[in-house]
Amino acid sequence: MSRAAAVPIVRVEQGAARTDQDLVAIEAPLGVEVRSVSGGRACRLGVLMRTPGDDGDLIRGWLYTERVVHDVASIISMAFAGPDASDPTEARVIATLADSVVIDEVIQHRVLTPTSACGLCGRLSVDRLDAGRVTLDPAVPRWSPTLIASLPARLLRGQTVFAETGGLHAAGLFDAQGQLLVVREDIGRHNAVDKVIGAALSTDHPINHSPLLVVSGRVAFEIVQKAAVAGLSAVIAVGAPSDMAIEAARLAGLTLVGFVRDGRFNVYAGAERIAENSTSPA
Amino acid sequence: MSRAAAVPIVRVEQGAARTDQDLVAIEAPLGVEVRSVSGGRACRLGVLMRTPGDDGDLIRGWLYTERVVHDVASIISMAFAGPDASDPTEARVIATLADSVVIDEVIQHRVLTPTSACGLCGRLSVDRLDAGRVTLDPAVPRWSPTLIASLPARLLRGQTVFAETGGLHAAGLFDAQGQLLVVREDIGRHNAVDKVIGAALSTDHPINHSPLLVVSGRVAFEIVQKAAVAGLSAVIAVGAPSDMAIEAARLAGLTLVGFVRDGRFNVYAGAERIAENSTSPA
Repeated sequence: MSRAAAVPIVRVEQGAARTDQDLVAIEAPLGVEVRSVSGGRACRLGVLMRTPGDDGDLIRGWLYTERVVHDVASIISMAFAGPDASDPTEARVIATLADSVVIDEVIQHRVLTPTSACGLCGRLSVDRLDAGRVTLDPAVPRWSPTLIASLPARLLRGQTVFAETGGLHAAGLFDAQGQLLVVREDIGRHNAVDKVIGAALSTDHPINHSPLLVVSGRVAFEIVQKAAVAGLSAVIAVGAPSDMAIEAARLAGLTLVGFVRDGRFNVYAGAERIAENSTSPA
Repeated sequence: MSRAAAVPIVRVEQGAARTDQDLVAIEAPLGVEVRSVSGGRACRLGVLMRTPGDDGDLIRGWLYTERVVHDVASIISMAFAGPDASDPTEARVIATLADSVVIDEVIQHRVLTPTSACGLCGRLSVDRLDAGRVTLDPAVPRWSPTLIASLPARLLRGQTVFAETGGLHAAGLFDAQGQLLVVREDIGRHNAVDKVIGAALSTDHPINHSPLLVVSGRVAFEIVQKAAVAGLSAVIAVGAPSDMAIEAARLAGLTLVGFVRDGRFNVYAGAERIAENSTSPA
């Protein structure tokens, strides 16, 4: 599925203009509906504005990190539909869920606190900050500063569309040796995270080995919450974290690193997991 | 109200670590409730994750660009509360609206299509793409390439917190002469846009003169929709637009410019409003 589109533009340079083409990232709505496998009406949970492609990963990851389901086995099937003649503007997915997922509870929770604007992604109640506390595998290794400093460049090498458009966020899961396990891109940074988590959940569950999440941008609260729900061990970001992201990482027991650039980075939480010979004060 | 917080960090540079402090952007939830001036229950529309400060501008702009109200006079009052003992984790605002705003319709629309994830900001239906078509003042002038190229630097000079934290998006309104009318910062790019629009609506309505909106990052659909609803004439971005943002700008009659850097930029829509001597093909 195409993730970039060529559009006609006017390119202006030093006051001189010429017509040209540019590649831009595709953004399109995907309505999300859920229903129980034993029947009952399908209920719409919302609409995701996403870059098409890896929609199965996106929905699997989103249902999981938003805690609509607590294990991927509860997602019985996903049916994608549209755009079509009856609904030309919007694609949609119907996720059929196991009966253990009480749809009414899901809906009630969403209706009571519907999300309403960017910056708020997924409905949330802040008192659930610590609900996703990571119980890390004791075998989670320490990471060397050299490894951490190398991750953004490794993520960039795994991206395919950003270089063309400059318009996509990326998220990648890496193992403790810095091996890229999965990378996904999306116009929404939260979507990119849901996609990598959904992809990991769909395969051989590398997520059980507490991989590191590397993101191309900044880190707000919701990214850390998603990482904690998914049992990841660290969030490594090229950009800045918010104070609430830091607080969430500390509560969840996650390592949070920001501003990874040119061999330097800042550790905002979980510095004890950075290799010992480098974390003692200078 | 503080928009940045000092946090203890471990700073790692070339493998050497030292404890230090860093300033990070503050992110905190603000619950949004509405009620009619003539009474009735207060209903929660959602929760905004925002950087505190300019909350009145944020809510005024958000209610307007999300079309909960169609004019600011319909916002009778805004009461801010919390965090407090009864609700220690979350601030909230109750906006009292004129009876001309049918709360049940507002709620019904939100409940039917609640927003559910980042990338989706505000519930939307895509068939409303053209509902905000700009009817530009015929007096809207053309802008010179020199003016447009200068706007990001002017926006940056108007920012106060970004330089400290690197963690905030900025939005600014400029008049046709490049004069900064209002600038606001927020951890959410949509919030920054709502804040500048809300600020403009609260004062002498410079928004009636079709100012230019300048944003520090990328432009997805929702930013263009907000600009169109507010009657702005152009969106000028440092970053990339999405295809849907471009489509929305063309439908709305907005000029959309991206990648404004080093004297260069790309015009994705409304190039006819860039001064004539520069838009003819080279």
